[in-house]
Amino acid sequence: MSLNIVIMAAGKGTRMKSSLPKVLHRLAGRPLLGHVLANTEALAADKRIVITGHGAEQVEAAVAGPDIAFVRQMPQLGTGHAIQQTVPELGEGGSTLILSGDTPLTATATARALVEASAGPDGEQRLVLLTIDYSDPSGYGRIIREGEAVKAIVEHKDASPEQRQIRECYTGIMAAPTAALKRWVGQLNNNNAQGEYYLTDIVAMAVAEGVPVVAVKTGDETEVLGVNSPTQLAELERRYQRQQAGLLMEAGVRLADPARFDLRGTLNCGQDVEIDVNCVFEGQVVLGDGVKIGANCVIRNATIDAGARIHEFSHIDGEKPAGAKVGEGALIGPFARLRPGADLGAEVHIGNFVEVKNSTLAKGAKANHLAYLGDATVGERVNYGAGSITANYDGANKHRTVIAADVHIGSNCVLVAPVEIGAGATVGGGSTITKPVAAGELAVARGKQVAIAGWTRPVKKKA
Amino acid sequence: MSLNIVIMAAGKGTRMKSSLPKVLHRLAGRPLLGHVLANTEALAADKRIVITGHGAEQVEAAVAGPDIAFVRQMPQLGTGHAIQQTVPELGEGGSTLILSGDTPLTATATARALVEASAGPDGEQRLVLLTIDYSDPSGYGRIIREGEAVKAIVEHKDASPEQRQIRECYTGIMAAPTAALKRWVGQLNNNNAQGEYYLTDIVAMAVAEGVPVVAVKTGDETEVLGVNSPTQLAELERRYQRQQAGLLMEAGVRLADPARFDLRGTLNCGQDVEIDVNCVFEGQVVLGDGVKIGANCVIRNATIDAGARIHEFSHIDGEKPAGAKVGEGALIGPFARLRPGADLGAEVHIGNFVEVKNSTLAKGAKANHLAYLGDATVGERVNYGAGSITANYDGANKHRTVIAADVHIGSNCVLVAPVEIGAGATVGGGSTITKPVAAGELAVARGKQVAIAGWTRPVKKKA
Amino acid sequence: MSLNIVIMAAGKGTRMKSSLPKVLHRLAGRPLLGHVLANTEALAADKRIVITGHGAEQVEAAVAGPDIAFVRQMPQLGTGHAIQQTVPELGEGGSTLILSGDTPLTATATARALVEASAGPDGEQRLVLLTIDYSDPSGYGRIIREGEAVKAIVEHKDASPEQRQIRECYTGIMAAPTAALKRWVGQLNNNNAQGEYYLTDIVAMAVAEGVPVVAVKTGDETEVLGVNSPTQLAELERRYQRQQAGLLMEAGVRLADPARFDLRGTLNCGQDVEIDVNCVFEGQVVLGDGVKIGANCVIRNATIDAGARIHEFSHIDGEKPAGAKVGEGALIGPFARLRPGADLGAEVHIGNFVEVKNSTLAKGAKANHLAYLGDATVGERVNYGAGSITANYDGANKHRTVIAADVHIGSNCVLVAPVEIGAGATVGGGSTITKPVAAGELAVARGKQVAIAGWTRPVKKKA
Repeated sequence: MSLNIVIMAAGKGTRMKSSLPKVLHRLAGRPLLGHVLANTEALAADKRIVITGHGAEQVEAAVAGPDIAFVRQMPQLGTGHAIQQTVPELGEGGSTLILSGDTPLTATATARALVEASAGPDGEQRLVLLTIDYSDPSGYGRIIREGEAVKAIVEHKDASPEQRQIRECYTGIMAAPTAALKRWVGQLNNNNAQGEYYLTDIVAMAVAEGVPVVAVKTGDETEVLGVNSPTQLAELERRYQRQQAGLLMEAGVRLADPARFDLRGTLNCGQDVEIDVNCVFEGQVVLGDGVKIGANCVIRNATIDAGARIHEFSHIDGEKPAGAKVGEGALIGPFARLRPGADLGAEVHIGNFVEVKNSTLAKGAKANHLAYLGDATVGERVNYGAGSITANYDGANKHRTVIAADVHIGSNCVLVAPVEIGAGATVGGGSTITKPVAAGELAVARGKQVAIAGWTRPVKKKA
Repeated sequence: MSLNIVIMAAGKGTRMKSSLPKVLHRLAGRPLLGHVLANTEALAADKRIVITGHGAEQVEAAVAGPDIAFVRQMPQLGTGHAIQQTVPELGEGGSTLILSGDTPLTATATARALVEASAGPDGEQRLVLLTIDYSDPSGYGRIIREGEAVKAIVEHKDASPEQRQIRECYTGIMAAPTAALKRWVGQLNNNNAQGEYYLTDIVAMAVAEGVPVVAVKTGDETEVLGVNSPTQLAELERRYQRQQAGLLMEAGVRLADPARFDLRGTLNCGQDVEIDVNCVFEGQVVLGDGVKIGANCVIRNATIDAGARIHEFSHIDGEKPAGAKVGEGALIGPFARLRPGADLGAEVHIGNFVEVKNSTLAKGAKANHLAYLGDATVGERVNYGAGSITANYDGANKHRTVIAADVHIGSNCVLVAPVEIGAGATVGGGSTITKPVAAGELAVARGKQVAIAGWTRPVKKKA
Repeated sequence: MSLNIVIMAAGKGTRMKSSLPKVLHRLAGRPLLGHVLANTEALAADKRIVITGHGAEQVEAAVAGPDIAFVRQMPQLGTGHAIQQTVPELGEGGSTLILSGDTPLTATATARALVEASAGPDGEQRLVLLTIDYSDPSGYGRIIREGEAVKAIVEHKDASPEQRQIRECYTGIMAAPTAALKRWVGQLNNNNAQGEYYLTDIVAMAVAEGVPVVAVKTGDETEVLGVNSPTQLAELERRYQRQQAGLLMEAGVRLADPARFDLRGTLNCGQDVEIDVNCVFEGQVVLGDGVKIGANCVIRNATIDAGARIHEFSHIDGEKPAGAKVGEGALIGPFARLRPGADLGAEVHIGNFVEVKNSTLAKGAKANHLAYLGDATVGERVNYGAGSITANYDGANKHRTVIAADVHIGSNCVLVAPVEIGAGATVGGGSTITKPVAAGELAVARGKQVAIAGWTRPVKKKA
């Protein structure tokens, strides 16, 4: 069956009080409109049409894709007017699903149910409304039924006292036979107080024509919550995060506190993964079997292999997927920082106040204290001393430091790149190394220790 | 109209189990009593009288001010007894508003409503009680009305079964005609089980005298919640923090999780400010347009200009208002620490494990890794190397380090202050600089690299 | 009276989706089964019998103790079958209390009440069921009473519509006369759809024999919540943490946010202790009077004396009880890391990005910036400079550094252990010290500063 999907994304979102168009505000790190597009991908629509308006260029640039068409609605004269703009883009047959770009969490299954109901069990086409029962329906348009069939949507302000008792409300989401939809929106008028064209007026047209109007009711409010303010955005963010946390726990992940867990992207976990309180995951993160993440970690675009332990306050940021790697059984942190290109082998130890960037550490290498490894290749079992630094930047270019297996670098050393340290070599503490060190050698570069007796300390000046 | 404000602050707060007088416990960083004083400032009372008792000297020292009078109540023989102590301080006319020093969040508007109701629409003075409907009123004094008029407050234990059905309760807050109040409290007795003088007994006196007693009802429980225990303090703290978060979001600030946000002071935000989870703000903090604060930051008394990004785990503490400044478009953290006197220009970068204290960094200067800048003046575009330290303290005095524009400081350098590095100079990695470096020069101070072949490493001793 | 305690711990916990047996999953850092054992210790049972099955060896190894007996149930054919396995271990007289290893928080007092009720007021023995009123009892076995006496437990699926109205449910916990219990479980059959032996069938046997069956009802759902999935584990964790937070606050501890507090072990606090948001405590932690813990600290097995302040983002890990000590009035952090054997005297200051391991610092010693102290003995008033490192590891063995009182160590120094610095000595910034420094001496070990004029910087290579 032919399917169009129309997504309304023209609104300004005044209450967001932002220079960013409303549909580009982020939920779990992704624009609201991006969620709608992601959730409709599996429907394999013939066409997905995004109606833009406020900030149209910015919105279009943000979500452009080969299968996305844009239609501009300027000025914005109501929901019916929005759909009128899409008429030239809609085909003749099949159904059209109408979603809202500020309502990000409508499930794919729900969208599919609307489309399927629109086609009708016997091929008879229908107008399908997504509805929900609110415990407090004040302000929402009520669904008026005769038996199963929907007869009208009555706005709250127009509803009689009896109608106001109705808890079933319209959600703003519908699916319609495309040909009928085009005909109906052509007949809309704006004879109302606001001077707007209301899409909901097509319900009366369908009823008048004898086209069945049916309701698909969702039980999950999260699916139909729209975002109009930072408060609503934060509330939906929390609901979404709790959902994600719930799914992970069902899959066996142990979260110390699902209310203090944030995932903005994807998190793939092996068995027996434990995540302590207040961690944030972004981008694509993969955690192998038995990985334990300590409290207060931030992990972005990283792959962490089985049995690794990430201690508290670690910050791992690979920038792009798999941009940082931690090997099996590695021990990281607390207070470790892994940056893009950090590629750590099995059983590597990175300790407190250590930064690793664009560097490969082979199995069993250790940098346990206050150190910087940038643009370095580090061999197996290397011990990289406290306070040691790879001077990888000469003010203009970056250079590599190569440290072969079994090297011992002392404390507070500087390795001025490009430089190579041969296998099994030792660099004495406090040395600044500018020339290669041969395998097995001890290299020292430090001043001679001089004792100055009788020296007197400075004394405190009077203020 | 003449207005006195009386604040009861004599109680010990036994359940706080603290050596600190109850009213000095802090909510959002400010003593409970300080909130009451702040909330009543706009009422422009002729006099504000604080009744002290337990820890009187400590309380008086904490909130002393030119317009604050103190009256001591020792021993504490009840609320009526407390007000008796204030009689000599009260004038003759106008109204007296009676608040509680352990009930910090009574809104200014509510206090004003009580005062205005006390004067009466026609100048007729009245006794005004602040009341609230509790869903569970157990334990509270019930408001007994005849029509609109209040006839009595009946304590829970004295209430009949019918009276116990009443949900409207007295909150401990009232406004009274000053002259009548003085007369009434003079007539109080302590003929009751506790042997205390109860202020609420004046309701019966007013009724007996034909002085109208009216109720002003609040719908917001937070306004009337008192603090008697650490549990209640924590609960009120959370309510207050949620209120503050709500106001910021209404103003357009995007909070990732309003339940994980703490503000103890004031936070002024431009447009499109984003604050990630678990941040704490203290003192006076100003965030410019588009500023983004990463997860788990602590920011105290700082001004952060437009477009700056504060990455996760940053700790910025200016000690006093504007004590730390971050320029436009600067990048700070993660794991950065800015201390008092850190004054960073536009586009400055301060990276991980870097501490800045009492130092000015001009536009585009960078200190990206494991470094300390104290008492330094750093020019534009300076690159301050990983692990480098300003040795600003000679054990007795602090000295300044001056680094001119375009200087490149290598890794693990020590700049022994006082010292100046001229424009465009370079300091080689691992150098300890004790003498000035002229503009454009390369300065190196390091030992010669020596290779010792055939050296054998220590071997592990047997335990 | 003779008492046996039987704890059922044979289940697999399929929904945990874990390789760890269910009862070994941790709540507040302790295995579920460990909680049950801890909560029953005060009952002084003659025998505690743990029924193991899935992962029996692992479970037995985890909780083995002199007074714990193990009985294996393989295969697992129901709760009645489990108790059948224990018959050879049970004595003849007294009572047997039956608990569940996956229901960790049954209070000692509740367990005692069951045991006491089992003995009967007049020595008449009874079967005692722990019950609870659920607002939604769906799925639970209902308690059928005649007057006070319990007549039956009816499974939800077998219950009549009237019985389904009953809110009182069985919790899986009971106490029985031992002799009768042994007789009854011998009579159980598995003539049911699941082919299992149900322990609850003994209720009918007791009724038939005229043995009184009574219910002890708990009002606290937390006591009877079992753990079957990571979701339930997380929910119970949060309840338990809130309970612990509540108890601490009742004792006077001020928690900034009880919902962001985690205690996995014991926390003993003096008066006026303040704990800011998002702190985690593990093992045995002792905080003296007036100690303040900043936001986002992790503290494990540490003793912190009166008046000390632990600033934000501090990580203190003593590994074993009292493994790290902080003296009176000390200032720690932010971003400090204290490791096992850190023993800090009064008024010691440990600042940002400083790591201390297996080191003693005497009164007033300071290490304020980016430093490492490992295997060191540091005297009173020592100032240990920014970036300085004790090189305690020669690649094979650890050695000690001894710094006497009043020493001033400059910035970025390396102290190559074993080495001693005499009282009042000074080590110049950037020095690598390999030989002892005598008391009062100034020791310097650095290269001579050389100026290279006319040097030209590298230029950026084209990519």
